[in-house]
Amino acid sequence: MTKNSIQQQLSQTANSVNQRMLQLLPEINHSSQSQLLHAMHYSALCKGKRIRPFLTLAVAKMLDANQEIALDIACALEFIHIYSLIHDDLPAMDDDDFRRGELTCHKKFDEATAILAGDTLLTYSFELLSNQELKLSPKIKCQLINIISKAIGYEGMAGGQMLDLEAKNHNLSEEQIFTLHHLKTGKMLIAAVEIAAVLGNAKTKTKKALLAYAADIGLAFQIRDDVLDFEEEKIKPRNKPDHASIVNLIGIEKANSQLQSLKNSAISHLKMFDKKADPLRELAVFVVEREL
Amino acid sequence: MTKNSIQQQLSQTANSVNQRMLQLLPEINHSSQSQLLHAMHYSALCKGKRIRPFLTLAVAKMLDANQEIALDIACALEFIHIYSLIHDDLPAMDDDDFRRGELTCHKKFDEATAILAGDTLLTYSFELLSNQELKLSPKIKCQLINIISKAIGYEGMAGGQMLDLEAKNHNLSEEQIFTLHHLKTGKMLIAAVEIAAVLGNAKTKTKKALLAYAADIGLAFQIRDDVLDFEEEKIKPRNKPDHASIVNLIGIEKANSQLQSLKNSAISHLKMFDKKADPLRELAVFVVEREL
Repeated sequence: MTKNSIQQQLSQTANSVNQRMLQLLPEINHSSQSQLLHAMHYSALCKGKRIRPFLTLAVAKMLDANQEIALDIACALEFIHIYSLIHDDLPAMDDDDFRRGELTCHKKFDEATAILAGDTLLTYSFELLSNQELKLSPKIKCQLINIISKAIGYEGMAGGQMLDLEAKNHNLSEEQIFTLHHLKTGKMLIAAVEIAAVLGNAKTKTKKALLAYAADIGLAFQIRDDVLDFEEEKIKPRNKPDHASIVNLIGIEKANSQLQSLKNSAISHLKMFDKKADPLRELAVFVVEREL
Repeated sequence: MTKNSIQQQLSQTANSVNQRMLQLLPEINHSSQSQLLHAMHYSALCKGKRIRPFLTLAVAKMLDANQEIALDIACALEFIHIYSLIHDDLPAMDDDDFRRGELTCHKKFDEATAILAGDTLLTYSFELLSNQELKLSPKIKCQLINIISKAIGYEGMAGGQMLDLEAKNHNLSEEQIFTLHHLKTGKMLIAAVEIAAVLGNAKTKTKKALLAYAADIGLAFQIRDDVLDFEEEKIKPRNKPDHASIVNLIGIEKANSQLQSLKNSAISHLKMFDKKADPLRELAVFVVEREL
């Protein structure tokens, strides 16, 4: 049997995640709130790489944790990621009409529906994590909810988005830009790994290594995004300067060399693990080399 | 000692809640995200009747539950109420510039900050409820999180807001308007009582009576709001027709007689309780007679 490429593994994971998200989402009924449900389904099931679920599932598998439960908590985290995309795309925020070639939620529906769909996906994620149907001890559930809520709050994703908005009005220093991305992107990727570590009952040392890996991946992910934007900008200028771009700040060469360092650093954090960690190693390479 | 009037009791509760909310909110620091924290503080500490915390605390006291813990979960629920006000006031939603005489969050700051402040208060509430510092068993915490997330999700508050938005485009039937208010206002008031019932380890019969009381109060609260709006409209027309107004639909006389029925019904649900339930009885009277 030939080993699956990381692209194949990502695509298989995305399929399982999409399938499970569809099962987990409240069914679209003929209630008067059906537009809200339509918007939640629309955004949740739009194309996506599902990097966060991949991380959760890969770590859970490596630690021999229950894969079905890992899939459910990975979906809950992905619903939160989707809420953040819906709100970030709003006219008052980044004002984007398209995401991955599809209309953004407020363009497909309207602004009010998009705000509510984001709110509801966020709320729904906590409902799923606290549901009795999720076969985990209440203690573990509380730990997961606490990890996630901290990762996406004022000291995490939302704080990062605030910094991102402020970056539109004045230039950030290199340190501030790295803080921004650590909060906005890094903390969620770290949480994706941490919830799997909790599920797999990882020892402190194992957990520490995995979180360090995720922090590197998170930053690399963002730098690669900025590099890709920079390259696209050269071909097709968007008239929308990105003040929070790492490439604009440190230049393309330094950005690319940072990517290589982060990849090596991420992989070095995995040295205590055997070949079970290969998907994580391959993901590190994928993150810095990906074309979209 | 003379018995405190319900107004005094409400005002005392509001003071304790405001004080505790200030302690619970993340401190405003000099971080680059300080605008987000300012906006959270601004909206959270704006004037408010704190009806939901009052309900939680009154029921908790009646059931001899720990008052300190009840205060913390009441504050967590109030943060969620505040998130919902911030988002409801947004230009894409109800487009309100003032709330209780103060600038709404997006007017005081800007739209993006207001969206984020709402998101963050919602998230923060779940962080508080799952924190180790909250001295409750993980099982109870999960129950509270589950009750609250269901009450504010697509089958609760957010679903009600969706209906409210749709009411702007086409007239709702009487049944739909009552559904709207049950979802948008009622479910949160019911949750305020239910979390206290869980905290006080209430028996099924007790809990059932309290939830029925809260459902009546919730509807009465909304009808009284509509009656007050109707009366204010007569003096100072706002050029902003409310398609979801119960008064517009059933007329002022029928609305007032419904208020009386709901008050009597609410109080009748409390007949199994002794004078410890007096604050709840007085609240039922207050809700239908209040002037603001």
